[in-house]
Amino acid sequence: MKMKKFINRPEDVVKELLEGFTLAHPDKVRLVGSNLVARAKPKEAGKVGVVTLGGSGHEPGLSGFVGEGMLDVSVAGEIFAAPGAPRCLEAIKLADRGAGVLFVVLNHAGDVLSANIAMGMAHKEGLNVKMVLTHEDISGGANPEDRRGLVGFLPVYKVAGAAAERGLPLDACAKIAERMERNMRTLAVATSTATHPATGQPIFDLGDDEMEIGMGQHGEAGTGRMKLKSADETAGLMLTMLLDDLKVKAGEELLVIVNGAGATTLMELFVVFRRVHQLLQEKGTRLVRAKIGEFITTQEQGGFQLLIARMDPELIDLWDARSNAPYFVVR
Amino acid sequence: MKMKKFINRPEDVVKELLEGFTLAHPDKVRLVGSNLVARAKPKEAGKVGVVTLGGSGHEPGLSGFVGEGMLDVSVAGEIFAAPGAPRCLEAIKLADRGAGVLFVVLNHAGDVLSANIAMGMAHKEGLNVKMVLTHEDISGGANPEDRRGLVGFLPVYKVAGAAAERGLPLDACAKIAERMERNMRTLAVATSTATHPATGQPIFDLGDDEMEIGMGQHGEAGTGRMKLKSADETAGLMLTMLLDDLKVKAGEELLVIVNGAGATTLMELFVVFRRVHQLLQEKGTRLVRAKIGEFITTQEQGGFQLLIARMDPELIDLWDARSNAPYFVVR
Repeated sequence: MKMKKFINRPEDVVKELLEGFTLAHPDKVRLVGSNLVARAKPKEAGKVGVVTLGGSGHEPGLSGFVGEGMLDVSVAGEIFAAPGAPRCLEAIKLADRGAGVLFVVLNHAGDVLSANIAMGMAHKEGLNVKMVLTHEDISGGANPEDRRGLVGFLPVYKVAGAAAERGLPLDACAKIAERMERNMRTLAVATSTATHPATGQPIFDLGDDEMEIGMGQHGEAGTGRMKLKSADETAGLMLTMLLDDLKVKAGEELLVIVNGAGATTLMELFVVFRRVHQLLQEKGTRLVRAKIGEFITTQEQGGFQLLIARMDPELIDLWDARSNAPYFVVR
Repeated sequence: MKMKKFINRPEDVVKELLEGFTLAHPDKVRLVGSNLVARAKPKEAGKVGVVTLGGSGHEPGLSGFVGEGMLDVSVAGEIFAAPGAPRCLEAIKLADRGAGVLFVVLNHAGDVLSANIAMGMAHKEGLNVKMVLTHEDISGGANPEDRRGLVGFLPVYKVAGAAAERGLPLDACAKIAERMERNMRTLAVATSTATHPATGQPIFDLGDDEMEIGMGQHGEAGTGRMKLKSADETAGLMLTMLLDDLKVKAGEELLVIVNGAGATTLMELFVVFRRVHQLLQEKGTRLVRAKIGEFITTQEQGGFQLLIARMDPELIDLWDARSNAPYFVVR
């Protein structure tokens, strides 16, 4: 089957999508330097800068979250590929308004490689940068280094961005980001593949009646391929694994995010969330905040990511803080 | 191929999706009466109520736009099917806070039938209700009655909702809604079908290398089936038809909405929008506002809707007004 995507030359797709995104929100974001997505109006000196990096093809992640109350600069790579270290260094310098920079990195080999090199370059230049790695995908096993960064970037951007906006110093922003990170877990499930917009090829194969729990954002193999289950069964299976891993106890306050991979409908995400809500109530936990939608996609892949996070009053307050990022407005 | 959707019993899907949606936003929306989606905190007496109706399966449309600054009540039907007139009447009564109700109806046969019966019942009971029909899909031909209501509901809800929130009387709210409606045009393109969640069957067929311009929100036949074109060609083709039909002149201020049908990625929508932006600039018009995302979907269908609307200072001001609807937050 021919690839059915509205693009022009595959080699231009990232440049063109970034143009379209920034042209749609000229009051909020702009392209600067080597195609960095930055706030249209940078904050005055004295605010900690918040920077991230990641491959393209996952829209609205990650650049859709640049804006007041969240990120200062996002470095977009090619499709499913990390940007190089020099562009990350450029972004760090752009975001540095004298109070240092928090660099949020999702645990994927290419991103971490570029980020580590950029951190070395930044420190050599005497810049004040702290890196926070998100690695909350429990399908990676017990070793935290093997756990990928999935939609957990969203609460980390949100609480760290809000802390920076309030004028907290870099150390405090980093501690908040790390606390959020330690207290969240994500698990993904895939039902159908996506087509790579550059090659026109499917990124993985899956049987007509199968789903795979634990699949990564780029078709990385998961832990459990099985026959397709109902919404309630799937929600129950995934939630149990997440609650066990995070060691959630009765009475604790939780944030839940259900993130659509691309082709799975919001209708289905609502049905899944409803079951998650029921189960959390049965277990005596308190679901205090929820967000359901597409925050990081893998093209038109079928499936979703389920995140749970243990919240505390400060994290809830920062999660609720105002944001004007194009794809995460909070008033 | 087996239907791959995360649902439970197909007959429960609407009930369960509405439960999930309202449980996720308990501070904003609640289910009342016969599964009506209403604001969690109804406005005090004296505000015009804004009510809509429509089939389910198009999430976040239409109930995702209930909230401060937009709708008061949404009546959700079964999958792709209009709700009955008695539930519409119930919604009108619920939204009536003494200043009358604006009833926004998308032009689809079933919706219009229920709406007309409900209007008759409301008038018989002495209620003060005005109905505004949206029918901006230019693929329907020259006769306005043959034009369907597509994503144009969004600007109509937004400006009418903002006008109502400001305390304008029913006549003024209706005039604003009608002015918005008269000044907008939409055209859709489809690239791949969706599966009906109740039957498990595709809702239409389309060749592996084809797209169809003018297809409706439920697979209704369009006007132009053709070989798949590039993003730039498709944008050019559709924009030309829209500008001609709306008789746009140089210097005019326009709103553009690019609405993804379900499986078409935000990446593609950005690429399409970039070309629309270029072409509008070449024609000397002013693209003053834009919104790109999924506002009304047809399950996991491929394709998008392109809307252009002629704006004036009052419409822009109302479009920019604050909203706290779950899927359209403006701060």
